Amino acid sequence: MKAQVFVSLKKSVLDPQGKTIQGALTKIGYKGLEEVRQGKYFEITLRGGISKPEAQAEVERMAREVLTNPVIEEFHYSLEE
Amino acid sequence: MKAQVFVSLKKSVLDPQGKTIQGALTKIGYKGLEEVRQGKYFEITLRGGISKPEAQAEVERMAREVLTNPVIEEFHYSLEE
Repeated sequence: MKAQVFVSLKKSVLDPQGKTIQGALTKIGYKGLEEVRQGKYFEITLRGGISKPEAQAEVERMAREVLTNPVIEEFHYSLEE
Repeated sequence: MKAQVFVSLKKSVLDPQGKTIQGALTKIGYKGLEEVRQGKYFEITLRGGISKPEAQAEVERMAREVLTNPVIEEFHYSLEE
């Protein structure tokens, strides 16, 4: 089973990296950008035979406890067989 | 309109960062991990009034030309209203 975890800065937190990318993109001619925010993306392959609720609990725990800094970041994830 | 762009290392490219995360997770007790790979995640907000095909073309061009290093990385993206 595969899980995809997306970690991004909370909306209320300034994202200087995203702002820099946005500035660079605008400068080299990309139009119509309102905002760019950057985050992290984890692709986690779990061993076969794990049940969906188990996988869900495990991935959520990992994301909450390790992959995300809860003070400034938030996460969402999706599971696929 | 919002676009989400996911950039990850090609499958054939070694991902030492992902390996390190996997090692750390396993060490602190997470079971059943087969593989962890890390990538980047961009949330791009486009100005209102842009059509879906336009947005698609623009985001794809940005991802291909700027956000991804085509030698070692690949990307996929999704659009939402």
